[in-house]
Amino acid sequence: MDDKKTKIKRGDTCCPETLCGPVDDVRRKYRAELPNVVDAIVESCHDMAGQLSQVDTAMLPSREETTKLIHLMMEIVFPGYFGEKEVDWAAIPYHIGSRASELMERLGEQVSRTIRHECRRTSSLCSDCVETGRKQAYEFMTALPGVRKMAAGDVRAAFRGDPAAKSYEEIIFCYPGLFAISVYRLAHELYKLGVPVLPRIMTEHAHAVTGIDIHPGASIGEEFFIDHGTGVVIGETCVIGAHVTIYQGVTLGALSFQRDSNGALVRGTKRHPTIEDNVVIYSGATILGGETIIGDGSVVGGNVWLTQSLPPGSKVTIASPKLVFHQPDKE
Amino acid sequence: MDDKKTKIKRGDTCCPETLCGPVDDVRRKYRAELPNVVDAIVESCHDMAGQLSQVDTAMLPSREETTKLIHLMMEIVFPGYFGEKEVDWAAIPYHIGSRASELMERLGEQVSRTIRHECRRTSSLCSDCVETGRKQAYEFMTALPGVRKMAAGDVRAAFRGDPAAKSYEEIIFCYPGLFAISVYRLAHELYKLGVPVLPRIMTEHAHAVTGIDIHPGASIGEEFFIDHGTGVVIGETCVIGAHVTIYQGVTLGALSFQRDSNGALVRGTKRHPTIEDNVVIYSGATILGGETIIGDGSVVGGNVWLTQSLPPGSKVTIASPKLVFHQPDKE
Amino acid sequence: MDDKKTKIKRGDTCCPETLCGPVDDVRRKYRAELPNVVDAIVESCHDMAGQLSQVDTAMLPSREETTKLIHLMMEIVFPGYFGEKEVDWAAIPYHIGSRASELMERLGEQVSRTIRHECRRTSSLCSDCVETGRKQAYEFMTALPGVRKMAAGDVRAAFRGDPAAKSYEEIIFCYPGLFAISVYRLAHELYKLGVPVLPRIMTEHAHAVTGIDIHPGASIGEEFFIDHGTGVVIGETCVIGAHVTIYQGVTLGALSFQRDSNGALVRGTKRHPTIEDNVVIYSGATILGGETIIGDGSVVGGNVWLTQSLPPGSKVTIASPKLVFHQPDKE
Repeated sequence: MDDKKTKIKRGDTCCPETLCGPVDDVRRKYRAELPNVVDAIVESCHDMAGQLSQVDTAMLPSREETTKLIHLMMEIVFPGYFGEKEVDWAAIPYHIGSRASELMERLGEQVSRTIRHECRRTSSLCSDCVETGRKQAYEFMTALPGVRKMAAGDVRAAFRGDPAAKSYEEIIFCYPGLFAISVYRLAHELYKLGVPVLPRIMTEHAHAVTGIDIHPGASIGEEFFIDHGTGVVIGETCVIGAHVTIYQGVTLGALSFQRDSNGALVRGTKRHPTIEDNVVIYSGATILGGETIIGDGSVVGGNVWLTQSLPPGSKVTIASPKLVFHQPDKE
Repeated sequence: MDDKKTKIKRGDTCCPETLCGPVDDVRRKYRAELPNVVDAIVESCHDMAGQLSQVDTAMLPSREETTKLIHLMMEIVFPGYFGEKEVDWAAIPYHIGSRASELMERLGEQVSRTIRHECRRTSSLCSDCVETGRKQAYEFMTALPGVRKMAAGDVRAAFRGDPAAKSYEEIIFCYPGLFAISVYRLAHELYKLGVPVLPRIMTEHAHAVTGIDIHPGASIGEEFFIDHGTGVVIGETCVIGAHVTIYQGVTLGALSFQRDSNGALVRGTKRHPTIEDNVVIYSGATILGGETIIGDGSVVGGNVWLTQSLPPGSKVTIASPKLVFHQPDKE
Repeated sequence: MDDKKTKIKRGDTCCPETLCGPVDDVRRKYRAELPNVVDAIVESCHDMAGQLSQVDTAMLPSREETTKLIHLMMEIVFPGYFGEKEVDWAAIPYHIGSRASELMERLGEQVSRTIRHECRRTSSLCSDCVETGRKQAYEFMTALPGVRKMAAGDVRAAFRGDPAAKSYEEIIFCYPGLFAISVYRLAHELYKLGVPVLPRIMTEHAHAVTGIDIHPGASIGEEFFIDHGTGVVIGETCVIGAHVTIYQGVTLGALSFQRDSNGALVRGTKRHPTIEDNVVIYSGATILGGETIIGDGSVVGGNVWLTQSLPPGSKVTIASPKLVFHQPDKE
């Protein structure tokens, strides 16, 4: 097509089809190769069967469906905030009722699916996925008043801890930390019931929205506050007490991983720290290890790196940072 | 249902309803419990009335509506980038006109709503929400040419500061830093007009998309550049001069919070630092405190932790980091 | 309107239009100003012509279209995971075929667009955008089996590296690190073909979703694992070997920028480090500079700040951090 390299003036409506050649011919030329392309990809599916392909298994819940479930849960936990209509006291039973009915139905279906998925993948016995899914969805629903109580405590903690907060409404409506904690609390209920995969999909949704990565397996007490939050990581086996405050970039992680005699990771041991009540951990601090215990009322300063326990009431900061001041006139 | 624990072969289409029992029976069993579930949740709403429930108040703007408003604003600030059609100079007045008309209308309605919401929550006098909302939306519109001028400066700053930037287009189209700054500049105009809540919802939208958390109350001069940006936190009372560059993970935060004699936080004081013109702050640096002033032309190195002021022209780095090199042969 | 400041009782349905004045009158008053507002904005477009406005140029791909393309690519790389229907082996050729057909068509169109856009912006010769776009889309399609093979290795690496991972499915379905790496691998193929802008739009989508910022120009070997990932930055000219693991908050960045005699940045030189095979880099570590080489099998500890090379097999940690323990009884 070099003969078509016509000089064009910038700003002209360049590249009409007459200059570049008829689109249809070009399309046809490459589309003729489509079957070969598809064959090569399909072949690669067989090569790697069972690894990348989700073939011959039951569907996992879609991310869209999970987002919808989270939205329904949030409308029940914080009625009037995330819906499309104003709610008054007379309407509250209908507002809650219609959402609870929809949530119980859709959640039951999804939990059954994830059980069926696990069942086909790992088991040779029927796992009663329909019965179990509906039962676990029901049990989750009965846990919602408790989640609401915890959420109310988290809102109070945020208001008490952040001078920029103007009202409870602003916190519920805007604060990514509260969103991440609420989704964690909901996912944690499903996790405790033994629902596979779905709790993690939920917390990873919150991670994507907020940059806060809380594993649904972590255990977190009441009145928990995360400010700003981007970069926070809270590992699977963390145990966090009541009235704890955490700032952006805090990692509560694993120190190192045990491997068995085959070199495979040992899964399921306590790898992440315990944070007792009334602890404050400032931005960028890292606390590692399953045997590390931060005692009641301790304060961990910004950027501190801890792999050891602290007795109750400790206050730890990094040593007055050694900064090098380059004098302007010497540069 | 144990009698149904039939052995199944993996890969079989297991778990048809005939194996697990009729779905409808199971559904019915748990749905019969729905009224009790709903009653318990509704009761929990009354227990915590006024805390988690947004009942008997005016609606706040929905996140979806806020996202739509931001999109309209961006189409006006950067015409031709975020819309669906090509724009030429002849069409520019219509492009701008149609979006400006829609924005002024929808924004006016939302601002009225947020004022009405505040009014019902806190006041006993009518706050003229309809009049004030429309007026503030109009005043916001008149500020847009100024925002466009600032945005042009921010684009130039990004191009000048990032060797990976190939063109202005790439910056406007792809750079999360520019998006976060632009949304901040728009939200800051509403903040200055005294619009409640909405500015914060806007910057938290940008926070969710970019990981950059700029409070709408911060004051930021022209030609501001944030590179990469994930984890950046800029507090409510920061004052940032012109030609400032900031990298990922930088916190401009509060040192500690004042509490009044009741132990409640004192809100509204200057708690965040002042950054003068031409300062560069590298990744992971933390600068804290309302009385901390970083002087004109200073360079703050990566991971520096500062709670003190710097005179103009300073250059501060962390002391040559003490690293422990474990010899491979000694491990 | 002060005469309308009626005292209202909180909780009343306040602010009906009759209190605040007829909405229509207020609207009309401010809407009468719309033409002036629009004129001011349009004028600002001419002032800054060519800087903020994308006028008289070809359209860039919309973000929505890019998201759709990524979704199609992911459905081909991980069949059965992200679609809406279960897939069995009989259906795989049709599943792959229909998505491949749609992807090749839509991608071809978008690549042509971005070439046309570049062409109008910078060139005076026709760049054969239609032909080249279709050709590059076709070449991208032929690269997909190779991308699938790399993705399979990345999944294995995640399972081997994370004790919290329960199954390959959980990793593919939930792990933001795998998503960011997969989108990078796809974008990198387009980058190698010379497609402008689109690869960066793709990786910035992944950045927005995951907080992981990988430039499409970086070169990354097989079995790459990023855990948690929020805050990770991998620069344009990084070279990363095989079996490398990286944790949240790691920066592989530039040390300083060269400027030419006019003070403009020199673009295109190697500015980012080389990481050899089998290296592990823990959370918050920063490695800077184009001449920095981290040798095979090295371990870089958390929060380490490195601007120098390491020989193979090195292990570097920060010196046992100097913490100040404030005794509780002395406070």
